[in-house]
Amino acid sequence: MNSYTVGDYLLARLNEIGIDHLFGVPGDYNLQFLDHVIDHPRLAWVGCANELNAAYAADGYARCRGAAALLTTFGVGELSALNGVAGSYAEYLPVVHIVGAPSQTSQNNGELLHHTLGDGDFSHFLRMQQEISVASSVLSADNAAAEIDRLLICALTERRPVYLLLATNVAESPLSPPAAPLELTPSVDREQLSAFADGAETLLAAAGSVAMLADFLADRAGQHARLQRWLTEVPMPFATLLMGKSVLPESQHGFAGTYAGASSAESTRAVIEQSDVLITIGVKYTDTITAGFTQHITRSRTIDVGLDHCRIADREFRGIPMAAALEVLHQLALKYGGNWQQGIIAPPELENISSDSLTQSTFWQAIQDFLRPDDIVLAEQGTAAFGAAALRLPEGARLLVQPLWGSIGYTLPAAFGAQTAQPQRRVVLIIGDGSAQLTVQELGTMLRNGQNPVIFLLNNEGYTVERAIHGAGQRYNDIARWDWTRLPQALSVDTQAQSWRVTQTVQLRDVMAQLENSPRLSLVEVVLPQMDMPPLLASVTRALHQRNSS
Amino acid sequence: MNSYTVGDYLLARLNEIGIDHLFGVPGDYNLQFLDHVIDHPRLAWVGCANELNAAYAADGYARCRGAAALLTTFGVGELSALNGVAGSYAEYLPVVHIVGAPSQTSQNNGELLHHTLGDGDFSHFLRMQQEISVASSVLSADNAAAEIDRLLICALTERRPVYLLLATNVAESPLSPPAAPLELTPSVDREQLSAFADGAETLLAAAGSVAMLADFLADRAGQHARLQRWLTEVPMPFATLLMGKSVLPESQHGFAGTYAGASSAESTRAVIEQSDVLITIGVKYTDTITAGFTQHITRSRTIDVGLDHCRIADREFRGIPMAAALEVLHQLALKYGGNWQQGIIAPPELENISSDSLTQSTFWQAIQDFLRPDDIVLAEQGTAAFGAAALRLPEGARLLVQPLWGSIGYTLPAAFGAQTAQPQRRVVLIIGDGSAQLTVQELGTMLRNGQNPVIFLLNNEGYTVERAIHGAGQRYNDIARWDWTRLPQALSVDTQAQSWRVTQTVQLRDVMAQLENSPRLSLVEVVLPQMDMPPLLASVTRALHQRNSS
Repeated sequence: MNSYTVGDYLLARLNEIGIDHLFGVPGDYNLQFLDHVIDHPRLAWVGCANELNAAYAADGYARCRGAAALLTTFGVGELSALNGVAGSYAEYLPVVHIVGAPSQTSQNNGELLHHTLGDGDFSHFLRMQQEISVASSVLSADNAAAEIDRLLICALTERRPVYLLLATNVAESPLSPPAAPLELTPSVDREQLSAFADGAETLLAAAGSVAMLADFLADRAGQHARLQRWLTEVPMPFATLLMGKSVLPESQHGFAGTYAGASSAESTRAVIEQSDVLITIGVKYTDTITAGFTQHITRSRTIDVGLDHCRIADREFRGIPMAAALEVLHQLALKYGGNWQQGIIAPPELENISSDSLTQSTFWQAIQDFLRPDDIVLAEQGTAAFGAAALRLPEGARLLVQPLWGSIGYTLPAAFGAQTAQPQRRVVLIIGDGSAQLTVQELGTMLRNGQNPVIFLLNNEGYTVERAIHGAGQRYNDIARWDWTRLPQALSVDTQAQSWRVTQTVQLRDVMAQLENSPRLSLVEVVLPQMDMPPLLASVTRALHQRNSS
Repeated sequence: MNSYTVGDYLLARLNEIGIDHLFGVPGDYNLQFLDHVIDHPRLAWVGCANELNAAYAADGYARCRGAAALLTTFGVGELSALNGVAGSYAEYLPVVHIVGAPSQTSQNNGELLHHTLGDGDFSHFLRMQQEISVASSVLSADNAAAEIDRLLICALTERRPVYLLLATNVAESPLSPPAAPLELTPSVDREQLSAFADGAETLLAAAGSVAMLADFLADRAGQHARLQRWLTEVPMPFATLLMGKSVLPESQHGFAGTYAGASSAESTRAVIEQSDVLITIGVKYTDTITAGFTQHITRSRTIDVGLDHCRIADREFRGIPMAAALEVLHQLALKYGGNWQQGIIAPPELENISSDSLTQSTFWQAIQDFLRPDDIVLAEQGTAAFGAAALRLPEGARLLVQPLWGSIGYTLPAAFGAQTAQPQRRVVLIIGDGSAQLTVQELGTMLRNGQNPVIFLLNNEGYTVERAIHGAGQRYNDIARWDWTRLPQALSVDTQAQSWRVTQTVQLRDVMAQLENSPRLSLVEVVLPQMDMPPLLASVTRALHQRNSS
């Protein structure tokens, strides 16, 4: 029992790729593996209240650290986590999902065990997980080292979840420690890269104006710093889509706003749709962030850079990692950027309707003033994310949103994961009441871990985003009415948390002033009109309603 | 929009099979269908705080009503519900899972929609759901009537979940109302039934002693009333396994306790293992309810009745619905029962260790005294279910447990579902603190719906059942410490709920006296020693620990 095991090997590899925390819920098929986690000197166990929340937390952690790990138990635990891991798959987060399973003997005998469907088939859940994993493996003592390495490399290369089934006896099997570091350098197709460089040069040398549109895959490929350097060295207009917002430096000159197709500000739209050449980086045109596919991007004048391939007009180039492509484009920008017109780029202003009672407009103005450099802001799908789209983020601030998968409740546990990943940064969570009810127990986990995020709980009495799509007055869009300010006291026995309920703009601003550098978890219940919503959300939901009715 | 639609047809059929409530969470792909639910005169929408909880609630409802329906939205919603539906599959509950999906046009175009994995493949989730459904269907305007009928018949016949994917435009498509009732009478293989009757008669005519062991499938087949009549007319010893506890009338003479293999009381074991003939009805020998497969059932003298097949010694009979087989056996018992010895059957007594401070022993003695006829008792997997195994249930009382799937947190939303199904009965929920944290938001839904269950929240500071299996002192078995008595006030703005925290046996009994006929939701936090557990659980967890280590 004291020798080095398969479980130890797995933990060593996780730690090697930058994972210092393992999120999850204990269960009887993973308890012995957990002993090794507890004994690990540099990797900490982070118990969550339930598995879905743990998966969301791991996703938030991966957004801040580049990768995350999740531990659940067979059947019940892993299936509860599925929706969270599916979100990581859809939105490209490498989450290593480890599932503790019954011993190989029990599995081979087809025993009628708890946490199974009672039919002796131990592969049901593996098949389900394969739909949302880029690789999966049933570990054995013999294949463990090779399979663990293969899966972690795959997760990091493709930036998506992988699934490891770890039977109790396999976790305890002896194994040698890793002999060499993981081989993580992606291969580059030099010929394709050179052809891409030639094609890009032809376009960029002749261009009178060039704009950049970046999205979430640029974030997933870790290109923030490079892009910021580029935009500092070569002033040019740039925007992001909502899903990738904060990957480009919004406090810098050239920031043209958040592009959302026909729902963009006119100035944003002009820059993105009318430049001679548009460089798109890690972009996906999802329905919600384009107001129902209303983007107008002319393919013939677009250079598109993906995670592992590029496109110039209609020509595809394969086998080019994003970093290599951006290196080429960055050099070309330095070479030709002096010829590009910059025009006058004024990022769109926030809607500014002053009001004594709180509205979406006065709330977002207050948030704009409240944010400071390096904040991590999580904005829930709904009024929060679409309101946040209009913010101009301070230097170094991150925005975490989930507009493609769009699973409500996601941001509360994700905020816990983000704060775990970066304890020194301020975490600001903006979430609606309907969404917060789905995953509220992780507020207790924040308190248990002494975290002090600032939480703005937007109380508009129900699912406002759904009211906007359909059934504004229908009671299926109502929710249970909670007394939010009492929650922190209920979810901890010795909480130092503070909470407020605000209905007036001036109250909100007063509370915000008190929140500067608060060492305690702060929950601000922000009472908003039921059908009030940011302008972007109004136009997006109109588009969704039409599409559902067609 | 005012004509009769596919959605209306589905609702009519659900209502026809006894479903008056639809549990779920609204989402943008099911909102228009929800309009029809709201308009339905006899089928009510029951919004839950999240989808997993809705699935658990539907399961609890199905246990009380025979079937249930669940509505979620594509991707995010349905995957969150998966673990709950899997439990219904494992434990044989017909839950009709309806998933609102994007329009067929969007699906056919492979659009990059929110709530998808972003790859244009709309079948990922269908494939996942098929692992935990006995039938599934992608509805279209053309196939809807036939497919809805096929699936509902399948769900009711096999007593397991089915999955219907309902695109927004299909739900709104015109369709005629059902022309005739569903054809639900199961077919019987008369030849097999006759051979079974002959074989059973040979055994029962010659037997000097006959005992009955029933389990959960007898409950699922709705055989309570028949079995009670039989045991009233023909006194004979009987027991259940924990999973089927309450399917036989425990207040009646002949009750021999809950059978749990080697962990049974000696008197229970003797009756079940040593009678000349044992009639087993709807039995599955799962690890947790047999203390790790320690049952000793001699096949050669066993008549086994399943949902749709029977066995006498080694001989199988197919195509016999349980009701038909029991009718045969009941008649044979009337004919030959007079010859069978009854012996003296004394059901095992509850462990009786008196103590001023609360212990598992004094808690269960108090519960035994507190229960009254027709209560619905939900006991969470853990100390609660294994403690409840030793109770002698009053007349008409039901026990809901989930020992095969064993998903912690299940009983809290299931209690909400059970109370919705049978508002006139008292619901008593017994759940540990670790488990309650997973699904706590449905306490708010109970309050929103004015329900008044009695909840005993066993606070032993963590996952005691897991401590018993492995890692008693390890911090992965600790949880966030909550102030439970404050929760009802936080999860409702105008709650009439009452709560108590008790640490002494006398306090608990005082509170119980006050709870008689309380019109309000009552939460009793019962403080128990961390490693204290019912004797049955201690022996079961010893067995599980050994198996995980082997």
